[in-house]
Formats: sequence, C-alpha cells, structure tokens
Amino acid sequence: MVNFADIQAAAARIAGKVHRTPVLTCATIDGMAGAQLFFKCENLQKVGAFKMRGATNAVFSLAAEEAARGVATHSSGNHAQALALAARLRGVPAYVVMPSTAPAVKRAAVADYGAEIITCEPTLAARESTLKDVVARTGAAFVHPYDNDDIIAGQGTAALELLTDYPDLEVVMAPVGGGGLLSGTALATRALAPRAEIIAAEPEGADDAFRSLAAGQIIPSEKPDTVADGLLTSLGVRNFPIIQEHVSVIWLVDDPAIVAAMRLVWERMKIIIEPSSAVCLAAVLARPELVAGKRIGMIISGGNVDLGRLPW
Amino acid sequence: MVNFADIQAAAARIAGKVHRTPVLTCATIDGMAGAQLFFKCENLQKVGAFKMRGATNAVFSLAAEEAARGVATHSSGNHAQALALAARLRGVPAYVVMPSTAPAVKRAAVADYGAEIITCEPTLAARESTLKDVVARTGAAFVHPYDNDDIIAGQGTAALELLTDYPDLEVVMAPVGGGGLLSGTALATRALAPRAEIIAAEPEGADDAFRSLAAGQIIPSEKPDTVADGLLTSLGVRNFPIIQEHVSVIWLVDDPAIVAAMRLVWERMKIIIEPSSAVCLAAVLARPELVAGKRIGMIISGGNVDLGRLPW
Repeated sequence: MVNFADIQAAAARIAGKVHRTPVLTCATIDGMAGAQLFFKCENLQKVGAFKMRGATNAVFSLAAEEAARGVATHSSGNHAQALALAARLRGVPAYVVMPSTAPAVKRAAVADYGAEIITCEPTLAARESTLKDVVARTGAAFVHPYDNDDIIAGQGTAALELLTDYPDLEVVMAPVGGGGLLSGTALATRALAPRAEIIAAEPEGADDAFRSLAAGQIIPSEKPDTVADGLLTSLGVRNFPIIQEHVSVIWLVDDPAIVAAMRLVWERMKIIIEPSSAVCLAAVLARPELVAGKRIGMIISGGNVDLGRLPW
Repeated sequence: MVNFADIQAAAARIAGKVHRTPVLTCATIDGMAGAQLFFKCENLQKVGAFKMRGATNAVFSLAAEEAARGVATHSSGNHAQALALAARLRGVPAYVVMPSTAPAVKRAAVADYGAEIITCEPTLAARESTLKDVVARTGAAFVHPYDNDDIIAGQGTAALELLTDYPDLEVVMAPVGGGGLLSGTALATRALAPRAEIIAAEPEGADDAFRSLAAGQIIPSEKPDTVADGLLTSLGVRNFPIIQEHVSVIWLVDDPAIVAAMRLVWERMKIIIEPSSAVCLAAVLARPELVAGKRIGMIISGGNVDLGRLPW
C-alpha cells in the first residue's frame, strides 16, 4: 500500500515539472465561516487541476523503456489532459480513449497537449475494450485516474505542500470522487499533522463515498446527479481502505450550496474554481457549530469551467 | 518627490495588513507570447486590487490624531473600497463621496467595508464641492486615488515584491490610468533592476498618457472610451514626471485585444482579472518581435468584474 514515503518521493520527482501552487486566504470568507480557512489552489496548477501531480508522478515513475512505449487512459476530464501534458514533458506518447459524446472542447484540450485520441462508443464496455486494444497495440502503460499508487502518491503532494506552509492546521479537507485526491491528502496529513482531523466533502447527488464509509464496503455510484461533475465516479479499491482508516467524516452538501460557494470564491477571491472545488467550502459554511474558530486547510481541486456556461 | 526609500518604508508599514500576492506563470501563454511572463497577481490582493497597498500606506502614515478624524476620497472604484478597508483596519472613519449614478453594487461594496457614503450629483463640480464640505465638516484627510506620494509609494510595493522574487526581469510592465501604479512600479524597478526596461500599456480609447509623454506635458483624458474602465482617468501631476523620467514607452492596444487577453487569462490561468489588468498582456501578444525571448514581469492590477456582465 502506498505510504508517506511514496508521497515524499513523488514530491521530489515532480518538483519543477508542476507548479508549487499558492495557499490563499480571504478575511471576508473567514468572517462568514467563523473559522480560518487556507485554500491550497490546485486550480492554479498546470492543466488547471491537481490531476497534474499524479499524472506527472506516474509518467516519471516509469522505467525508460516502459515510458518509451507511452501511457494510456480512458477519461474525458482533467486526468486525460494531465496525462497528455506529463507525457509530453517526458517526450513519450499518450493515448486517450474518449467516448464519441465527449465535448469538442475537451477533445481539443487533450489534443492540444499532444495526445492521440481514440474515439469509442459511449459505453463502459466499449471504453474498456478500446483501451485494452490500445494497450495491446502500443504496449503503453495504463494509468488509471485514481485507483493507482503513483497517482495517489502524486495527489498527496498538494497536502504535503499545504502542511509544509501551515503545519498547525487543525482540519484538512478535500472533495471526494474516485478518492485519489482524498487518499493522498489523508496519508500526507496523517504523517505531517498526526492530530489534525481529515474531513471530506461530497455532493448529496453523488454520495457513494458517504454511503461506502457507512456500509464498510465500496458502494458504486449509481446515476449520480450533481453540478460537481468532477465527483461522479465511484471509489477505487486502493483508495477506499486509506479513506476508511484516516477520514473521520464525510460532509454532504446540496447543489445550490455548491454553486453559491463557487460564486462566493469567484467574487471574493478572484480565482476561477470548478463546482467540485467548492464542495468543501460549501460544507464548512453549512456547519458553523462544527468549524467555529478552527484552522482549516482545504484543497481547491481545479478550475476547469466552460466560461460560456456558468451555473448562475 | 517620492523615492525608493519611501517604497521600502511603505512595504514595512503595510506588511501583514495586505496580502503578499503570488507571482504566477503559464507555459501556454509563454508559448503564445514567445517570452517568459511573470504575473504579479494584485487581483488576489485584498479588495481585489493593488489599490489596497496605497490606501493602507496612506492611512497608516497619518499621525494618530490626524488619523482619528478619518480619511476621505471621491471615487466609485477600487480606491474607495481600499480606503474604506484600510480605515477599518486602523479603526478610523472613512468618508466616500460617490455620484448618485454609481452602481448599487459599488455602493454596497464600499458600505460593506464600513465607510460612510455621501451621495452627490454626477458632475465633477458637485464631487469636488461635496468632498470639500465633508473635509470641512469632519477634519478628515483627503487621500487622492493616485496623485499622492503615500499612494505612489504604496503601489510601488507590488513591483518591489515582484523584483524581490524575480530579480533578473528584463522588462517590468504596468497599465496606466492616473499613473499611481505605474509611477510606483517605475521607482521600484529603477532601484532594484536598474537595467530593466519599464513599459506601460494603455487602451487606444484612453490614450492620454501616451499623448502626454509625446507632448511632454499632461494632456487630460477627454471622453475616454474603453472596456478597461479602471484606466479612464488623466495623469496626476506627481505621477507624470516620474513616468517621464523612467518609462521608456507606452504600448497601445485596442479593446478586442484587451477582451481576448482577459479571456485567455481566465481560461488558462484560472484567475479572474478585470479588463484593465489584461492591457499589458494584450500589448505583449501584439508585439512578438519586441518581446521575443525576454523575461517580462507585469502587474495584474485587479479582479473586480461584474460576473453577471462579462465582456464576451
């Protein structure tokens, strides 16, 4: 199982290849929350998301001859862009399987970073069989977006930096989708701030992680429906036990609260965050009695938003 | 005349009261510009603009008994919010004269920071006489938005921080409206990077600084028309000689280029910048032959935008 030493190794491996993102604060939002909030801004990361950390760690962890055959994934989101850019940084090919229904803007973004896009029918079966074909044909290494030790270690470097800058946080928060960011955040926090609480936030309309923790086993996400489109996926088998061990609670929030928190950050902090990034703040603002006076760090996961289709 | 020692004193005076803003970079935009760009993000400053630096320096430069009577200004923009917040930080009153035509959102922002708003007719004469009345009645100190030595010294602290982080910049840029930011930037740059070029950027539709430099005297701004609504004012008499001495050139850009650069920054850097902040980047992107290969720092002046009325 991945551990804190892997996160430290990842930090050394990706240094200079990804941004060391700033931690921002906002007195107005602190006043509204009744707490001190420290926002680790992965929306300002390359490709606009923390995904660049894991993808870079995964690509640069490959042995030279393995890397030369390239990397592959199926994703139409931030992981695909991150893997494409990380592969380009190493000078190796990237293959991305995308459904024919993926928005043109996402296809263009992945293509811009130099990946070869392989289109498939928009079904899970087609996606998996197409990926299998690509791997068989090219010998590329499959890099799963979250259920992968190198990815988890890479994502954990965001919390490592946050706690290096602010060692005395009492709570560290991350949103949870597949659990890559949350499991990495949990491992880094447990090592660097052993007494800090690790809290996740999740949309009510995609509450599979909340239900999985309650059930003691992974409950797959079924027909998730939320504005936080980065958090639709089910937990990975590598991610779940880490989350079970270290995360004390998952706070649920509804979509209107997510959109309101997102707009608040845009207006007061002048940074562009995607809905998935607003889930932690929305959860904090809804729980004044639980957060009062605390020093809370939270990972702002990304900023990839269609500026022509804002949710307000 | 204000000098670099005043900027150093201002930096010490405002430390801890304003944000030390991050300097961000973007490989994609560097590739488009053919240069290395370093964005000093004053949009992430308190009240969303560099104005907080000058206002804080001015308010905290007052002697105790003078400060107790408060500060006053006429402005419906970022300076009014900044002065209101700076006064609140010192625990003294702020009086802001605003025309009856000022948008409700701007009045609310100034009121939120605790200032007393005095409404006047929307004419220059009414604004000046109302301010005079307020100062006579309260004994408050008038703090001009840019034509003021403490303001200039405060605004210069942004470039001081930028050049502390990146001492080897070859060009330092700022947008020019009244000249407060530009004159402070010029003084800090000349002291810290004596061989760096100091370049301003200005909208074609508000090119009074460009024409003033050419004429060798201040040419007032007449009926300016540009999307960059923070750059409509004429140069101040304290600002102009500093600009004359140190600024090598003012680059003009048209509004479509400003809006395109603004949107590019939103999309690729995930930060919210106002049109006035995009003028420098627009100027750089239009002059590939002049910037090729250079290390260029630029002040992103602010991020106060009405999210319900975007210019695209």
